[in-house]
Amino acid sequence: MSANQFGSRFVVTSFGESHGTALGVVIDGCPAGVTFDEGLLKKELERRRPGHHGTGQIVSGRQEADTPEVLSGVFEGQTLGTPIAVIVRNQDARSQDYKEIKTAPRAGHADDMWKNKFGHSDHRGGGRSSGRETVSRVMAGAFAQMVLKHVSAPTRVIGYASQIGSFTLSEEERSQVGQKDVDSFQARFPSSRDQDVAEMLRKAQEQGDSHGGVVEILIQNPPAYLGQPVFHKLKSDLALAFMSVGATNGFELGLGFEAASVPGTQFHQNSQSPYGGIRGGISTGENILLRVSFKPTSSILDVAKKGRHDPCIVTRAIPVLEAMTWLVLADHYLWAKTDRI
Amino acid sequence: MSANQFGSRFVVTSFGESHGTALGVVIDGCPAGVTFDEGLLKKELERRRPGHHGTGQIVSGRQEADTPEVLSGVFEGQTLGTPIAVIVRNQDARSQDYKEIKTAPRAGHADDMWKNKFGHSDHRGGGRSSGRETVSRVMAGAFAQMVLKHVSAPTRVIGYASQIGSFTLSEEERSQVGQKDVDSFQARFPSSRDQDVAEMLRKAQEQGDSHGGVVEILIQNPPAYLGQPVFHKLKSDLALAFMSVGATNGFELGLGFEAASVPGTQFHQNSQSPYGGIRGGISTGENILLRVSFKPTSSILDVAKKGRHDPCIVTRAIPVLEAMTWLVLADHYLWAKTDRI
Amino acid sequence: MSANQFGSRFVVTSFGESHGTALGVVIDGCPAGVTFDEGLLKKELERRRPGHHGTGQIVSGRQEADTPEVLSGVFEGQTLGTPIAVIVRNQDARSQDYKEIKTAPRAGHADDMWKNKFGHSDHRGGGRSSGRETVSRVMAGAFAQMVLKHVSAPTRVIGYASQIGSFTLSEEERSQVGQKDVDSFQARFPSSRDQDVAEMLRKAQEQGDSHGGVVEILIQNPPAYLGQPVFHKLKSDLALAFMSVGATNGFELGLGFEAASVPGTQFHQNSQSPYGGIRGGISTGENILLRVSFKPTSSILDVAKKGRHDPCIVTRAIPVLEAMTWLVLADHYLWAKTDRI
Amino acid sequence: MSANQFGSRFVVTSFGESHGTALGVVIDGCPAGVTFDEGLLKKELERRRPGHHGTGQIVSGRQEADTPEVLSGVFEGQTLGTPIAVIVRNQDARSQDYKEIKTAPRAGHADDMWKNKFGHSDHRGGGRSSGRETVSRVMAGAFAQMVLKHVSAPTRVIGYASQIGSFTLSEEERSQVGQKDVDSFQARFPSSRDQDVAEMLRKAQEQGDSHGGVVEILIQNPPAYLGQPVFHKLKSDLALAFMSVGATNGFELGLGFEAASVPGTQFHQNSQSPYGGIRGGISTGENILLRVSFKPTSSILDVAKKGRHDPCIVTRAIPVLEAMTWLVLADHYLWAKTDRI
Repeated sequence: MSANQFGSRFVVTSFGESHGTALGVVIDGCPAGVTFDEGLLKKELERRRPGHHGTGQIVSGRQEADTPEVLSGVFEGQTLGTPIAVIVRNQDARSQDYKEIKTAPRAGHADDMWKNKFGHSDHRGGGRSSGRETVSRVMAGAFAQMVLKHVSAPTRVIGYASQIGSFTLSEEERSQVGQKDVDSFQARFPSSRDQDVAEMLRKAQEQGDSHGGVVEILIQNPPAYLGQPVFHKLKSDLALAFMSVGATNGFELGLGFEAASVPGTQFHQNSQSPYGGIRGGISTGENILLRVSFKPTSSILDVAKKGRHDPCIVTRAIPVLEAMTWLVLADHYLWAKTDRI
Repeated sequence: MSANQFGSRFVVTSFGESHGTALGVVIDGCPAGVTFDEGLLKKELERRRPGHHGTGQIVSGRQEADTPEVLSGVFEGQTLGTPIAVIVRNQDARSQDYKEIKTAPRAGHADDMWKNKFGHSDHRGGGRSSGRETVSRVMAGAFAQMVLKHVSAPTRVIGYASQIGSFTLSEEERSQVGQKDVDSFQARFPSSRDQDVAEMLRKAQEQGDSHGGVVEILIQNPPAYLGQPVFHKLKSDLALAFMSVGATNGFELGLGFEAASVPGTQFHQNSQSPYGGIRGGISTGENILLRVSFKPTSSILDVAKKGRHDPCIVTRAIPVLEAMTWLVLADHYLWAKTDRI
Repeated sequence: MSANQFGSRFVVTSFGESHGTALGVVIDGCPAGVTFDEGLLKKELERRRPGHHGTGQIVSGRQEADTPEVLSGVFEGQTLGTPIAVIVRNQDARSQDYKEIKTAPRAGHADDMWKNKFGHSDHRGGGRSSGRETVSRVMAGAFAQMVLKHVSAPTRVIGYASQIGSFTLSEEERSQVGQKDVDSFQARFPSSRDQDVAEMLRKAQEQGDSHGGVVEILIQNPPAYLGQPVFHKLKSDLALAFMSVGATNGFELGLGFEAASVPGTQFHQNSQSPYGGIRGGISTGENILLRVSFKPTSSILDVAKKGRHDPCIVTRAIPVLEAMTWLVLADHYLWAKTDRI
Repeated sequence: MSANQFGSRFVVTSFGESHGTALGVVIDGCPAGVTFDEGLLKKELERRRPGHHGTGQIVSGRQEADTPEVLSGVFEGQTLGTPIAVIVRNQDARSQDYKEIKTAPRAGHADDMWKNKFGHSDHRGGGRSSGRETVSRVMAGAFAQMVLKHVSAPTRVIGYASQIGSFTLSEEERSQVGQKDVDSFQARFPSSRDQDVAEMLRKAQEQGDSHGGVVEILIQNPPAYLGQPVFHKLKSDLALAFMSVGATNGFELGLGFEAASVPGTQFHQNSQSPYGGIRGGISTGENILLRVSFKPTSSILDVAKKGRHDPCIVTRAIPVLEAMTWLVLADHYLWAKTDRI
């Protein structure tokens, strides 16, 4: 297990600095015979791109399109069973803007941590601690999604913002999320108040403020019996996956922390599955509900850059968390192949 | 990476069924020259043992003492650099009590999940999904703690219940936790209300109810610069570690979900570190605060067994979460040895 | 991948010092539902035991029987899909005999290497560099063999000495090896000259000399299509497996070094498969022939111990190499489960 | 451990099909602060290129130069501690020449094996079983060499052909190899008979014949105490490394198979180290001598292509084996960092 590697069977290695030549990923362990869906790959990259959404339009996101290039592992429309390598080149590197960081690391960012840990670090826009690294994850996630399409067509992964700053979805809005096109909402906050959220963020940007939030990931119709006891329960691998995303600071399965206050008689009699679709660390086949919290962005600490600081990353993180979910599902699907002789 | 294995450098493999012959662990990757502290190993096992604490006294915990036997890896009071194997034999197996499970899996337990996943499973007391598996983790954690003693003597890991059912520590009580002997509190709820918690749990047992709760893990004076970007950030490995423990359903670093509602200007101006001691996935050297939520135990669903069902596992889980914390620290300490040439 | 771990799917962790409390192995990744064959486990351990064979009778081998104890992973005659732990206790530890090594490491042994590498080492009889460590391998190999029995019943692994010192099997003797009971030959040298070999070894012991040799491993009817390009070709994993055994210093597949001298037109027109049953790193389903060379034992350098030094380890190494072969087969059998979607 | 991954600390993932878009490698685990030597990277790629040497001039090797592009992990002349990705684009893909293979797999090649194993395979020039995959290994090996330069400057890895077909180096020629520029010999056969070898190969090509051979790898002044008992001894990892190269079928350390015939009294009294520089699986710091045998190329079986078939791959394999050696050294150098507390 190396630092930039995720998964045990569907093994993903991510590489690339924010302002380096390219970002990319190698997937080792994808079975042969998976139909390659280039449209899906491009769509997911586009969904990740800052500026695609309302909140993004006002932030620091690069305007460049991310064009994936598949270097290996796919031939005549199918995976070969060999490593799949995909890259996206950095076009709008702007590294000159980041020269100052070399001497004055940005507060709240990880620049100084990297400098002290590795001695030598890339001061250009966060290097590898930048959110741009998630390009690699989204590409890998698209391939994982292609695997699931083959073996579990009804499985869907739906991510949405359930909270941004002081705005929170109502129970009713949450219950309808499966029927909505989340991407049609500017802040991926599927509510009539989506515009208000966007407005709040615009103001935050003007005023040099920022907001955190909560993303919910709903896995509809997951394959049953995924998850490996004891250290690679489905819930633990999902927690690892989500908490590896920048700015996350909380993870919940099903009721999460709220369950701590509910007496067992009430909790277990719940008409809905109180376990969030995972029991004993193994998927039951029921829908799985996950929640991830994000702290407010630290870019506000860069006073000099207020003009284009990013007031919230919740909306943008959604395709990344979805990708991580697909990766965990594909990995555990393959893993389960050897559960029995 | 196999299913029962944890860690990348300090690699732990856990084994043993709840009612099998023995539970144990092999640690591969512990450096040579670490002083073996048998007292610490025994103390941590004793701290894990159900019945050691007030809430435990009234529950299903076995009364047997867990006596560790070191099979390899230690010689003349030091580690050899070879794999360390330690086992604890099961004495009070009582597997006859569990015969009925073979035909009637316990609701809320993972028995049926295992049966369906693996085809063939151990119906005796949960087999490997039992809480008894944590004996292995606690033994491994004790060795990890011995490693840290060598290289970072001031590091302490303090676990305590910050919430059990409707009882929650006050801010003042939480701030004093470093000065208290948490184990001296029946429910490891370091408050004058600890007795009330114990009383609530006794009632819950009588009435066939159960309670969840929240454990906080405070890492004092951790080594700085631990954590490997991007997938093995310190926070992601801690999340994996904690969410691999049974009945957990939530994880927070620092402010956690609360941070989602705090505007950035306020969050980042906090006099205390708002990052919970981890920034960019890397430890800053400041104290690290983690929170884990537990759902109420499902044993209440076993109506026939109410007489000795376990109304809460929060208190008992604390030494296990501490052990997992030590494992993550030892693993990342060794990992950081190769950060620079 | 940790140092004492072998395999990617059928993951084996070996532990135990030669004169420690016990030797053992944990297998993580064995599927559920494999029939446990205790007789096979015991038989393989017995076959490994020094003294079982003629050459062994005169050497330093301990006389103790190795009684395996299965600690976990097996229930009601089948594997559970949980980690399988098996140990053998050391009874005849005799560590006092080895006290002298503490100050005077044995020439040719690895004692000094370990001392310098790890700083602190186990001077009792080689600690973990002793041949006794192979107990763990043989136990793991027996479980791997049980896996293959389920999925590829006709597969056989036949090891034999094709050379000991100056004695070499004739082509005719080699061609008949499949019809012979190798274990019925004192030196596992399946020839009418087996007695002469044994006599040579007895003399070598008297005279303080030792002999090397060559073991051949014939895999009959292996499953086809095992082996993972590019770094885990079947041949490379077999080479790793065999060269991890003490005193080995050469490995050949099929014709091996001899092929270097044969013109291609002749080599490839061979009526027998010239590839040794592996092509492109993948098993063809044809028989696989492997050869391993051993240097003469270094125990002769311990002048003071001539009285019971071991003049040859080739015979004893055969069950170990067979075990390693089963491990590679089981690992790759499981690995191939995810070749295609 | 995934199929296309090599190493435990200095973890290399290779990707790319022979006639796909690009070949490449990602190195995860290279420490920060290693001086990047672009000249070395280019030189090693050039040394690998078919056609660089006499024997190559007459064979199927592509004439394209391989230009490496570093995509990540290097900044301002040093490694960052982040994953290093390097690619080489395929320019002269010529996949139309290989169309016929789709229906008629080449005898002796692995085309049919891949087809049967993976169901769907790349029929263009061997896909990933092609020798072109070694471009990735050579690039990774160059980075490993840069690591060693930092920490063990006197270490050299010298590869040469000690046998090609019927030609074998004399003892005297072998003893002088350290003083010669192996690359200045057409067939990397450091002898005055090098021309004769080249002539033999030219004839073999004309006549549709081919030859195997033996490569020797001499590691001068390796760091001492590398190698991890028990499964990752230095010798076992070297065997894995070398046997993962196409067409290899034998491996020897030191005297190798010859030692099987030498009595122990003679073997161990040898004035030179008889252990080949590795004892107990651990490097002694003495020179290490390794030998690898190659079978004659199977391309002769493609009768229709005789015109440009490749009569020998020994010469070309030398830089690849050297690269694998550097990889093992770098991996174990980093691994040894955690031998002691």
